[in-house]
Amino acid sequence: MTTGLPRTGVGVDVHAYDPDPAPGAVLHLAGLAWPGERPLAGHSDADVAAHAAADALLSAAGIGDLGQHFGTAEPRWAGAAGVVLLGEAARRVREAGFEIGNVAVQVIGNRPRLGPRRAEAEAALSGACGAPVSVTATTTDGLGLTGRGEGVAAIATALVVER
Amino acid sequence: MTTGLPRTGVGVDVHAYDPDPAPGAVLHLAGLAWPGERPLAGHSDADVAAHAAADALLSAAGIGDLGQHFGTAEPRWAGAAGVVLLGEAARRVREAGFEIGNVAVQVIGNRPRLGPRRAEAEAALSGACGAPVSVTATTTDGLGLTGRGEGVAAIATALVVER
Amino acid sequence: MTTGLPRTGVGVDVHAYDPDPAPGAVLHLAGLAWPGERPLAGHSDADVAAHAAADALLSAAGIGDLGQHFGTAEPRWAGAAGVVLLGEAARRVREAGFEIGNVAVQVIGNRPRLGPRRAEAEAALSGACGAPVSVTATTTDGLGLTGRGEGVAAIATALVVER
Repeated sequence: MTTGLPRTGVGVDVHAYDPDPAPGAVLHLAGLAWPGERPLAGHSDADVAAHAAADALLSAAGIGDLGQHFGTAEPRWAGAAGVVLLGEAARRVREAGFEIGNVAVQVIGNRPRLGPRRAEAEAALSGACGAPVSVTATTTDGLGLTGRGEGVAAIATALVVER
Repeated sequence: MTTGLPRTGVGVDVHAYDPDPAPGAVLHLAGLAWPGERPLAGHSDADVAAHAAADALLSAAGIGDLGQHFGTAEPRWAGAAGVVLLGEAARRVREAGFEIGNVAVQVIGNRPRLGPRRAEAEAALSGACGAPVSVTATTTDGLGLTGRGEGVAAIATALVVER
Repeated sequence: MTTGLPRTGVGVDVHAYDPDPAPGAVLHLAGLAWPGERPLAGHSDADVAAHAAADALLSAAGIGDLGQHFGTAEPRWAGAAGVVLLGEAARRVREAGFEIGNVAVQVIGNRPRLGPRRAEAEAALSGACGAPVSVTATTTDGLGLTGRGEGVAAIATALVVER
């Protein structure tokens, strides 16, 4: 039983490619590991797609953002995988009284090519938050931080409704 | 008759201005031709507004993205106009069982000035997808790829609901 | 009493930090004054969060954009605070026959740290438009116009429904 209008939310995240990746370091993106692809850098696993999705959910519910929920003041989440944060964000959104409709994430960057693993990525992120997450990808025609290959961005919208 | 919550989707697209436009080449943006404006480059007609709108629709329905539906593996769509891709994306979204609520596209760039032709652009894109498409525009205060005049970006959100 | 599907809208805004702020100039962001923080430049108060929110509302309703409603052709709004424009945009959206569901704004930039004043910012923007506005924040890992500290961006989505 839901009441009233659904609510929309938005989240963007950007991480730089790691200039000096540790031996064996692996790119984490959209809930998947990408062996052989250049890793992104970050205190966390730098999964921009999972982070953008989580921030869009928190934003839709109006209960803060990733920094507030899982930032440096919350050391138990230090180094947590993006999908773990997405799952916990979804749990907190439901705990705050919302049903999750869906999340849509677009990955913006030159690499990796997401298409061949789209279904796998959607399964990983949807499984993490218990609601449909669509994963799409685009490039920026050689322009901007993603076009120059400095990093990868993700943008997400989410829809929730108060129970 | 629709069931359940609507679904949100998001799409971003960027194209560079053509550094060496062919004689007679014309800018295509938001479903319109813009004679006298510097063209954008791309395999397609580089209509970032139509592309972002199409990607937002596909994203909302969770049925992939422009690259998957109309990319290099689908040669029959090579060179297709953005409005044609938007129309076909809308058709596929409906075929997948969704009703289209609306699409909102914002064009981000210095040129062209979209305001004087907004109604015309909205008619072109709405006609292409058979649902209301709002077209708005902004600039980025001289910053970033659009502010430096390297290209034009567009961002879109869409709302669909399962029939 | 509302009819039909809700409508989604989107708005992005970017302003550069003021290279030569007047003595006593203050940053305005998300409906708040931020003494001690470097001001953004603009004809208006350069409140990117309020502007993005207003544009998302206008976009959702399909009634144009900030430039059309409050641009240089509308001198009575010259220099108006972002929250004033947001309030007036909300009024025009309602006047056009829509109920406002919510607005979600994400501020993208290195400074100021928004977290400590999130509740205050949400109260200011929600008060201005008479509907819930969530305010979140992120950074771009040192990349792009915001990561290099050239300016601040904001991105917003809004949901409205026809009465």
